[in-house]
Amino acid sequence: MKKTSMVDVTPKPVVFREASAEGLLRLRPSTVRRIRRGEVEKGDPLEVARLAGILAAKNTSQFVALCHPLPLTHVDVAVDIADGRTVRVVSTVRAEAKTGVEMEALVAAATALLNVWDMVKKYEKDRGGQYPTAEILSLRVKKKFKGEP
Amino acid sequence: MKKTSMVDVTPKPVVFREASAEGLLRLRPSTVRRIRRGEVEKGDPLEVARLAGILAAKNTSQFVALCHPLPLTHVDVAVDIADGRTVRVVSTVRAEAKTGVEMEALVAAATALLNVWDMVKKYEKDRGGQYPTAEILSLRVKKKFKGEP
Amino acid sequence: MKKTSMVDVTPKPVVFREASAEGLLRLRPSTVRRIRRGEVEKGDPLEVARLAGILAAKNTSQFVALCHPLPLTHVDVAVDIADGRTVRVVSTVRAEAKTGVEMEALVAAATALLNVWDMVKKYEKDRGGQYPTAEILSLRVKKKFKGEP
Amino acid sequence: MKKTSMVDVTPKPVVFREASAEGLLRLRPSTVRRIRRGEVEKGDPLEVARLAGILAAKNTSQFVALCHPLPLTHVDVAVDIADGRTVRVVSTVRAEAKTGVEMEALVAAATALLNVWDMVKKYEKDRGGQYPTAEILSLRVKKKFKGEP
Amino acid sequence: MKKTSMVDVTPKPVVFREASAEGLLRLRPSTVRRIRRGEVEKGDPLEVARLAGILAAKNTSQFVALCHPLPLTHVDVAVDIADGRTVRVVSTVRAEAKTGVEMEALVAAATALLNVWDMVKKYEKDRGGQYPTAEILSLRVKKKFKGEP
Amino acid sequence: MKKTSMVDVTPKPVVFREASAEGLLRLRPSTVRRIRRGEVEKGDPLEVARLAGILAAKNTSQFVALCHPLPLTHVDVAVDIADGRTVRVVSTVRAEAKTGVEMEALVAAATALLNVWDMVKKYEKDRGGQYPTAEILSLRVKKKFKGEP
Repeated sequence: MKKTSMVDVTPKPVVFREASAEGLLRLRPSTVRRIRRGEVEKGDPLEVARLAGILAAKNTSQFVALCHPLPLTHVDVAVDIADGRTVRVVSTVRAEAKTGVEMEALVAAATALLNVWDMVKKYEKDRGGQYPTAEILSLRVKKKFKGEP
Repeated sequence: MKKTSMVDVTPKPVVFREASAEGLLRLRPSTVRRIRRGEVEKGDPLEVARLAGILAAKNTSQFVALCHPLPLTHVDVAVDIADGRTVRVVSTVRAEAKTGVEMEALVAAATALLNVWDMVKKYEKDRGGQYPTAEILSLRVKKKFKGEP
Repeated sequence: MKKTSMVDVTPKPVVFREASAEGLLRLRPSTVRRIRRGEVEKGDPLEVARLAGILAAKNTSQFVALCHPLPLTHVDVAVDIADGRTVRVVSTVRAEAKTGVEMEALVAAATALLNVWDMVKKYEKDRGGQYPTAEILSLRVKKKFKGEP
Repeated sequence: MKKTSMVDVTPKPVVFREASAEGLLRLRPSTVRRIRRGEVEKGDPLEVARLAGILAAKNTSQFVALCHPLPLTHVDVAVDIADGRTVRVVSTVRAEAKTGVEMEALVAAATALLNVWDMVKKYEKDRGGQYPTAEILSLRVKKKFKGEP
Repeated sequence: MKKTSMVDVTPKPVVFREASAEGLLRLRPSTVRRIRRGEVEKGDPLEVARLAGILAAKNTSQFVALCHPLPLTHVDVAVDIADGRTVRVVSTVRAEAKTGVEMEALVAAATALLNVWDMVKKYEKDRGGQYPTAEILSLRVKKKFKGEP
Repeated sequence: MKKTSMVDVTPKPVVFREASAEGLLRLRPSTVRRIRRGEVEKGDPLEVARLAGILAAKNTSQFVALCHPLPLTHVDVAVDIADGRTVRVVSTVRAEAKTGVEMEALVAAATALLNVWDMVKKYEKDRGGQYPTAEILSLRVKKKFKGEP
């Protein structure tokens, strides 16, 4: 087994980097209606998700163990209702850096969805206190780009 | 639209809480073989994932915006190869607290999978530098429990 | 000069604690109108302020050096437009703890106001890039309470 | 209402940035005398304030939600007794960066004053445990500079 | 090889815990004289060390991977000049918790010594920029206690 | 006494920096045998130490108070059994920066050793719950380098 180690990016050039990630969270239709109507008691899940996603992206190197700390120049987290039972997040991260920002984009999207979940979890519990419906169904890198912006 | 606010858990009793979450990450069969054979250059993704998941669970209230800080008494993150193209994580979190620990379990599982992804991303890129296969296919709360341990 | 030291709260009983703090940020009337009309390019400053204030309160012991880490059970951050040139924040923090939560309330209020500032700073600069108007005019503990909730 | 988003600073040039902020904390004359004489039980509030302000400036992007992480090259936090009832802090922050450092300077000054407050709060309480005097009376950007150092 | 896992402390009783740790940092006699005379350009290393040690103790569970987050009720970090070439730190940590606080005491002492080192490193370099003298010579748990305070 | 202040590195050039640090932790021979045989209940201390050391290096500026935040390009933490009673860690840190990375290397090494200690502390306690053997015997900068890589 190899020893854990960070990739040495010292010799790599600083170039423009961009990555976007997409995530989908399935919820009950009644929960999605609540979000749409602004009836979630804890506030607006889409707004909280955007902000929490941005903050998390900036902290990526603290919880993805082998990520390098990167000076992000842009983080955008778009959260919307994809259909009657799905919240979708699309994150975009930019930096001029020696390594890519796809982990930052994934962290932003994952954190955004987990914040939505937290805000609506009250409406997703069944009688036994379980979550039969809520599930992140997909989280993936949409696109990665390196080169001139 | 409601204003963002934390639930006031002051009047709730301190009781034993447990939650487990499960997540699945799809990878290329060749990447899964590398993990199995200990041929991942950055180290052992399953081991790193376990540790990163545990650390993240302890920080849940810093990136799930409306979560209360909880004195976790146990975090377990099991990571294994589910089948020829899937890594699975099952996290378990315990606390004696006024509110549940399902968000902590989800955060642990999500972070564990993102750490696996980071460690093997080199083997998942296609010629254009994109990730056609890698995807978190599921992340959900397996079980939530409240009461006597 | 005394040596820096944390107060030893070990012998103190765990009781209900509540504190609220209030802060005022003066801005240009034109900026306050922008906030009211939802015309701030970076988003809704009041919403961002609420969330950032809640998050900061949970981290108080990391930047108020001699504060004890406390298991907060509630944080509320209300942000509104007090008058044509003033944004007001009122924070409320609760915990069952051995020491008071007034520093947490102050941290929440200060952070909320600084986030408003950051979001509107573009509209507050004069031609020389200076801020002739923006100023936190007051930040104080409104009320502190200890005992039965 | 606009969606929350970070400003994209990717295309901006890296230039020298400097900002200073000033804050004033009103205290009881008896408390200010204690500080002057080195009779504060928890230690020297001015010294703790300096250090806590420096540390906070480095963490600005974690609690000002839409701030970019910046590689600060200098943080100075001067704390002194302005008059018989006022502690004053003046912070100065420098960086070579794509965006200004005024939020970092404000965060340093605010945190410094909150640390002074925390250290002397024992002497500021009235019989009812309230704080009739302690108040941050002003916090503002003194000067912002961009260009050749 | 066993899988990484946190000890499950759920069933353990909450009792008073105390631990103290001691560390020794060897420096050049000329550096120790500078500290004594208040001639260190970056400030007073002993004062900075005290504060940094206290802050680090509160963050122990974030960098000792398998430590439980504990509600510390007291942290004391005493730093002095032990002899003409040695700085000594003795940390004491208290909590009412399900597990001991010796790691918190060690973290406080290690961080205090590293902060002293950072502040005087300018005076410890030889012509080649190396550190022939500076060395932490000892860091150990002095005493651990569990039971009635 | 001088006031606490960060060194202003603004005018310094960005150059390649490397530093390595070495630390030694003495343990009971029986504990070292356990590590060798993979019989430590909490997992593999050497693997956890590597990862925790890497993570801590990235956070250096948060707990070494006057350190500048640096964009590390490489962190390597090698942990092995030096002899029948000693665990050794050697850390290497690289960056292109205005100031050196020796504090980052020391932080990585110290954190790695403290994580080993935490994982084996169960086997190091005597009947009275004390640690007669476990001790960090040395922590020092092995080598510092500045210039062309």
